[in-house]
Amino acid sequence: MRIGIDAMGGDFAPLNEILGALSCIEECASKLDEILLYGNQTQIEDIAKIQNLDISKLTIVNCLDSVSMHDDPTEILKTKKDSSLYRGTEDLKNKKIDAFASAGNTGATLTFSTILLGRIPGVSRPTIAGFLPTTKSTPTLILDVGATIDQKSRFLFEFALMGSIYFQSVYNKPNPTIGLLNVGQEETKGTDELRDAYKLLKNSSLNFIGNVEGRDILAGTADVVVCDGYVGNVIIKFAESFIPLLKQKVKEYSQKSIISKVQTALSIPVLRGALHGLDYEEYGGVPVLGVNGISVVGHGSSTPKAIKNMIKRSVELANSNLIDKIQSSIKLNT
Amino acid sequence: MRIGIDAMGGDFAPLNEILGALSCIEECASKLDEILLYGNQTQIEDIAKIQNLDISKLTIVNCLDSVSMHDDPTEILKTKKDSSLYRGTEDLKNKKIDAFASAGNTGATLTFSTILLGRIPGVSRPTIAGFLPTTKSTPTLILDVGATIDQKSRFLFEFALMGSIYFQSVYNKPNPTIGLLNVGQEETKGTDELRDAYKLLKNSSLNFIGNVEGRDILAGTADVVVCDGYVGNVIIKFAESFIPLLKQKVKEYSQKSIISKVQTALSIPVLRGALHGLDYEEYGGVPVLGVNGISVVGHGSSTPKAIKNMIKRSVELANSNLIDKIQSSIKLNT
Repeated sequence: MRIGIDAMGGDFAPLNEILGALSCIEECASKLDEILLYGNQTQIEDIAKIQNLDISKLTIVNCLDSVSMHDDPTEILKTKKDSSLYRGTEDLKNKKIDAFASAGNTGATLTFSTILLGRIPGVSRPTIAGFLPTTKSTPTLILDVGATIDQKSRFLFEFALMGSIYFQSVYNKPNPTIGLLNVGQEETKGTDELRDAYKLLKNSSLNFIGNVEGRDILAGTADVVVCDGYVGNVIIKFAESFIPLLKQKVKEYSQKSIISKVQTALSIPVLRGALHGLDYEEYGGVPVLGVNGISVVGHGSSTPKAIKNMIKRSVELANSNLIDKIQSSIKLNT
Repeated sequence: MRIGIDAMGGDFAPLNEILGALSCIEECASKLDEILLYGNQTQIEDIAKIQNLDISKLTIVNCLDSVSMHDDPTEILKTKKDSSLYRGTEDLKNKKIDAFASAGNTGATLTFSTILLGRIPGVSRPTIAGFLPTTKSTPTLILDVGATIDQKSRFLFEFALMGSIYFQSVYNKPNPTIGLLNVGQEETKGTDELRDAYKLLKNSSLNFIGNVEGRDILAGTADVVVCDGYVGNVIIKFAESFIPLLKQKVKEYSQKSIISKVQTALSIPVLRGALHGLDYEEYGGVPVLGVNGISVVGHGSSTPKAIKNMIKRSVELANSNLIDKIQSSIKLNT
């Protein structure tokens, strides 16, 4: 098991990537043979030296270029062939590694994965999903979160097929429930495309529970929530902005009086504990679903812990038969 | 100034409607001449008697029928002509009252308002907006939140025109900033309709700041966020489900140990104080924008305080020249 990491990807690259990889080697040495860091060798070695880190157990694949968060995914195919992201995806294609993970530019990962790895036969659009916390014991998987902004019933149906398999493989739950994100529960709600998607889902072998609404996502009404990439992208970014808002309101409260200041200080463990349950770090990363390879996307501002979890998730996925399962499911439903 | 209230509207009707109306009369007697409660007279009087409430200052308009939350807005036009909602909207049309407010079925209010009051000339689609709290001093107005689910550039542009005027009238802020909800900041992002809307907004006299993303809504990046009713509806319902999730996570934390139980008990004032700032109650209600009359929609689970604020908002709107301003703005931009 060889896992490639984009060392130049995240907001705190390459330091967090190095730290995450090292802690992963420590924690799960038995499960993987090699971690390959794709990135600028000099930069990686310099940072390791400054931070006094022993990186002798990591393999560095020297890449002189990198993709930034602001690079246009349509441009990079021509201009970024010596980037860590391109080289890693290429090695994944050529089976030199079993999975490749990046906390960098998601659009770029999607582009390289789609072009280099190719789509699984029958998949119209590769998709990226996201996990959101719920009041239940498992999170909700929402997809698509930005890969495909056009709302088409066939796309939505395929997202449901792929999301079902992915949720199943992560939470080991057979037949996860599927909800179609809509403005009301009734079958007649929504656009023509949403109504058509409802029919496709209803007539499939999926465990479709009908339309779900915005309030159902965090309530965990369905294991998998299906929507187009416009609304999914807005939701996933919106969700992340709750915690800063809450912190601001707590701060405003604390500034009201000396008593409220003391009360706030006392409540910090509770707030920290409660917000911990809402933390994206635990989920590590999500694969680009629908391509011929395990290409994993992490959060831009990944901490070392998030990077570690992203690598662990990559190992799991490389062992999961995900691609074959998606291929069978798509074939069965075409 | 005469304000009509749908006494049969909200989840706790007619009690909360009566309580809200009474506290409004107490608080702002100088600003309004009469509050008319549209609803089942016997039921209203019985509840007032049981609760020992003096309703002699309220006028009851006896309506034998009512619209439920589950009634289909397309059916009710034929079947619910003696409902409190229909009768109130009709009296608004006939200038017997200056504004009408309901915490009931939003789709039904939209239908009755559009059909009975009629659209302001040049308005393609009436719209309903919602306020969301932000880290800044004023909330964000987001529209549309479910009236129009089709994404069309012209609709989006009109939502921006109407939202700008509405935000201005509520917060007395000239030239509020307008953001177009999209998956990225760049002008090229999104569907064709979103790109066209971008151009319309850019070339208008509005204070357009460009595309905004999901994370910008609660950050208060723009005063007014424009989107189609599908994503707006999902967002507004999703936002409401955050507090139950947080409460659940606090509960889970408190159950960890005796110490965490004590910590949680101590932190209740802080949580209450912080969450108070996220409360929809303060906003009271929002008007159906784009129709010839002040028809105000309140939250289904309105408390008496929310009902009171809904009535106060109705008075403000009836005094605001809102309809003329919308008419001029639409005319100027057609």
